[in-house]
Amino acid sequence: MKKNQRNIRIIPLGGCGEIGMNMTIFLIEDRVFFVDAGALFPDASHIGVDLIMPDTSFIDQNLLKPDAWLITHGHEDHIGALSYLYKKYPAPVYGTEFTIELIRAKFEDAGISRAIFNVWKFYQPVLFRNLKVTPFPVNHSIADAAGLFLESKLGNILHMGDFRIDQNPPEKTMTHESLKKILTGKTVTLMMSDSTNSFQQGTDNSESDVLPSIANYLSTCKGAVIIATFASNVWRLQSIFRAAKSTKRKIVLFGRSMFRNSEIASRLGYLHYDPEDIIPISEAHKYAREKLCILCTGSQGEMFSGLSRLAWGSVSEFQVTLADTVLLSSRSIPGNEKAIDALVTQLSRLDCQVITAKEDRSIHVSGHGFKEDLKECIRIAQPKAFMPVHGTYRHLKQHRLLAMESGVMPENCFLAENGDVVVAGPEPVGVIDNVSSGRDYVCPGGIYSRDSFVYKERVSLVRSGVVTVSFCFSPDHKLLAPVGIACRGVSIDEKDLSIRCDKIFDNALQNKVKKGKNGGVPVLKEDIRLSVRKYLENKYGFKMTILVILNSISSK
Amino acid sequence: MKKNQRNIRIIPLGGCGEIGMNMTIFLIEDRVFFVDAGALFPDASHIGVDLIMPDTSFIDQNLLKPDAWLITHGHEDHIGALSYLYKKYPAPVYGTEFTIELIRAKFEDAGISRAIFNVWKFYQPVLFRNLKVTPFPVNHSIADAAGLFLESKLGNILHMGDFRIDQNPPEKTMTHESLKKILTGKTVTLMMSDSTNSFQQGTDNSESDVLPSIANYLSTCKGAVIIATFASNVWRLQSIFRAAKSTKRKIVLFGRSMFRNSEIASRLGYLHYDPEDIIPISEAHKYAREKLCILCTGSQGEMFSGLSRLAWGSVSEFQVTLADTVLLSSRSIPGNEKAIDALVTQLSRLDCQVITAKEDRSIHVSGHGFKEDLKECIRIAQPKAFMPVHGTYRHLKQHRLLAMESGVMPENCFLAENGDVVVAGPEPVGVIDNVSSGRDYVCPGGIYSRDSFVYKERVSLVRSGVVTVSFCFSPDHKLLAPVGIACRGVSIDEKDLSIRCDKIFDNALQNKVKKGKNGGVPVLKEDIRLSVRKYLENKYGFKMTILVILNSISSK
Repeated sequence: MKKNQRNIRIIPLGGCGEIGMNMTIFLIEDRVFFVDAGALFPDASHIGVDLIMPDTSFIDQNLLKPDAWLITHGHEDHIGALSYLYKKYPAPVYGTEFTIELIRAKFEDAGISRAIFNVWKFYQPVLFRNLKVTPFPVNHSIADAAGLFLESKLGNILHMGDFRIDQNPPEKTMTHESLKKILTGKTVTLMMSDSTNSFQQGTDNSESDVLPSIANYLSTCKGAVIIATFASNVWRLQSIFRAAKSTKRKIVLFGRSMFRNSEIASRLGYLHYDPEDIIPISEAHKYAREKLCILCTGSQGEMFSGLSRLAWGSVSEFQVTLADTVLLSSRSIPGNEKAIDALVTQLSRLDCQVITAKEDRSIHVSGHGFKEDLKECIRIAQPKAFMPVHGTYRHLKQHRLLAMESGVMPENCFLAENGDVVVAGPEPVGVIDNVSSGRDYVCPGGIYSRDSFVYKERVSLVRSGVVTVSFCFSPDHKLLAPVGIACRGVSIDEKDLSIRCDKIFDNALQNKVKKGKNGGVPVLKEDIRLSVRKYLENKYGFKMTILVILNSISSK
Repeated sequence: MKKNQRNIRIIPLGGCGEIGMNMTIFLIEDRVFFVDAGALFPDASHIGVDLIMPDTSFIDQNLLKPDAWLITHGHEDHIGALSYLYKKYPAPVYGTEFTIELIRAKFEDAGISRAIFNVWKFYQPVLFRNLKVTPFPVNHSIADAAGLFLESKLGNILHMGDFRIDQNPPEKTMTHESLKKILTGKTVTLMMSDSTNSFQQGTDNSESDVLPSIANYLSTCKGAVIIATFASNVWRLQSIFRAAKSTKRKIVLFGRSMFRNSEIASRLGYLHYDPEDIIPISEAHKYAREKLCILCTGSQGEMFSGLSRLAWGSVSEFQVTLADTVLLSSRSIPGNEKAIDALVTQLSRLDCQVITAKEDRSIHVSGHGFKEDLKECIRIAQPKAFMPVHGTYRHLKQHRLLAMESGVMPENCFLAENGDVVVAGPEPVGVIDNVSSGRDYVCPGGIYSRDSFVYKERVSLVRSGVVTVSFCFSPDHKLLAPVGIACRGVSIDEKDLSIRCDKIFDNALQNKVKKGKNGGVPVLKEDIRLSVRKYLENKYGFKMTILVILNSISSK
């Protein structure tokens, strides 16, 4: 791939083809910018995987070095891979205050101590070579979320980040108003926009509408109220703190990220509360149940999170009882349905009341714009070209239709998936090429591509188990000890196999002599492996993984 | 557990705590009856598992031998485990004609040749010692579905099977009418009823309402129409055959169970069609696209099923194009959401129209009764006691509430989960005991309990990979060859480990001498295993599975 072209090339490495792991490369003439470094959480189908992130072999192959990391906001699907990728591709990290604080905490956990952070402010342009970037505020389910306006001689790119339009926003500013402000007198060559809710009709309630609904539960429920929500949704936390105050309930924070995020948000002035309203869980027993509101993590049914621990009764300081109410102030992230279902079932064993957004829509709103929000922003930006991002193929396709409905010429509504190379300026051309992309799995012991040898071997062990056979023989190929056997994940007659292996060894030797193979040890080894596998398959009815060790003993 | 008690004991081994793998044991004095032997299909979270079925260790522990297998209908969640369990617990199998034919086909696949089948007819009682069983017809999404009325001196049990009430039923008879007929002049000591849809309000459309909706697609769509549905839903197949006939489309059957089930259903007279209306897929190219209706399996996104193969373009005889329409005339079984989503996404890449029951409710109806159906049947049966079955804990609990609303005394509304022992007669007592229950996994190489050593070992290999180290030593513990190494699912420096292992071996020997341990080889082996694991963990940062083989060479 040619490096210094006189154009703007945009290459999504993640987020175009899935919801999660958002990451985009911008090549602007000879400069390189990475926007976001998101992770995807593994679900039950990703066995042995701790985290999923974009495959970056394209970056390695082309020896790309970023001028900067530009981060739109602090959600995991935008920063979750940054501590891994920063180590490989160090560059100054730009983001708003809250975003940078969350990254800082993440880097600390990862032992990265000398990163360069630049806190940028809304509407204050940052100048790079070839590029001017101006962050602007958007409404989203986290504090300090930004859209980016990228201006260059070769064209202007509007990257909306994750957003919605909130008519009564906790952020005080509305996305479409910020957009008008940033775009006054400017043209947009290409607009990139969030497709998460491109199938949702209309527009969602305001984040501010959640407060009265939660306050209503806090005032009417007889027992303790346990609320699970995303700890990064500072607005939601603020609503819950206010509702608890007004209904004279004490707040118990439960779950690591609840503590961490409320500390950061309060320190930066996004979250306001009276420290006296918060009590540690160890003091919960001192209060009447109807004076308690437990604010916890775990709305996705994560196994060791706050709500799961409460549901399975592993918290000695507080037990959920039948008088209590549990609110899941959240949505189900696709892939988590079964975990959430197991959690709700477990809670129903405790006979408490469980309310999810399915039962009562008013306890949650989405941070991503529905159709009308998306169209409104396209109409304001009037981009020459449009590129939907952040969604599965279907979401992108649907969002592309919305762009056409909103006045963008159909031939300028692009549909790019991960790895597609989109030429965006000076003229928007669309997809011209495709580079390697995919998913990397963070596993115990390393980061492996989904298609890597190591990961595939691990997965295959689940169906095959493993049997090792170890032969000790003299230079003239006489076996010197009974064949050693070690197994895992299979149940076989080891003695029988050991005896049988004597014969397999002799046969393999004879084969080697007969056929005049001169491959030596590797040929012998493979012959033995296949024979052992065949013998066990005939006896037990399935293919096991067979490892062979040949110990050649030269002298005693 | 005492065997010959003068009572009726009911023990669900599956289906009470999940949707699927239905199986119930009836102990009536000294007689033993097994009702249904269902399987649960593994989803992505059940790694290395081909099929899930009830753990039957309780049966083995108590040496129970069934007098008969009583099968309500031919769905996989009622017969899917029968070929496995019949081998362990052979007994005559009772079922309606269509049910028995499906089981027969299953047994043939499993190589069971000498089973005893008894085809029973609705309303004709079958007499066992201590027990009279009368099957009666219920409305369900498969032909020949039965409820069972079990009469004994110790009380009468009504087992509803899987059912709904259909006001315009393809079966010609309605569940509640059959129920009235079978119960005339009888009392019901305990009623067991299907909880699958106990959360659904009202009642669903009739199965017959699906025909006009599908006919509408067949008449208005310009291209081929591909319809995926459950092959066992003979009523649905009949509707589609009729709709195709009326719109002059030829039917192509695609997917193994589509062929098998339509052959059986047609032979038994449940499915009627003109053989000329069906063409093989190899002849599809001879017809105009708008003259084709492909009827296929794969509505759950199963990987090698008909619809998946069409979606991924692996069928040389027929390619889906943008003029075509795909109907998923089915629901999503929980756990399959992601697979279905991937399927629909792949279809949307082909630009064809995709309609699921989410977009158009009228192309599918449920085979399980909604609230009003459930309450209606309870009101008709007026059972003394009630036991909800076929559902997760929450479904059972909800159904129990419906029973209370329908006049059953709260103290007689039982809530039993798998393994609970319910005394149902002479007086309905409720849960008195709990026996071992759980899930067995059919895996390559055998059937293992979910909690078995072998299965747990296999799963742990996905996170750990495996490293075998093999030592050859003389009687005086001198190593005679370089330590042999074999790995799978890890990437390590084998040479370095081999060299290091010399030292580990020496240390382990010295430890053994120093501490005066006299465990001999096992102690030495464990010491080496731990040392190797620790060494590799320090070097690579994660715990691998280590296998150790000690080859003691006595003489050359």
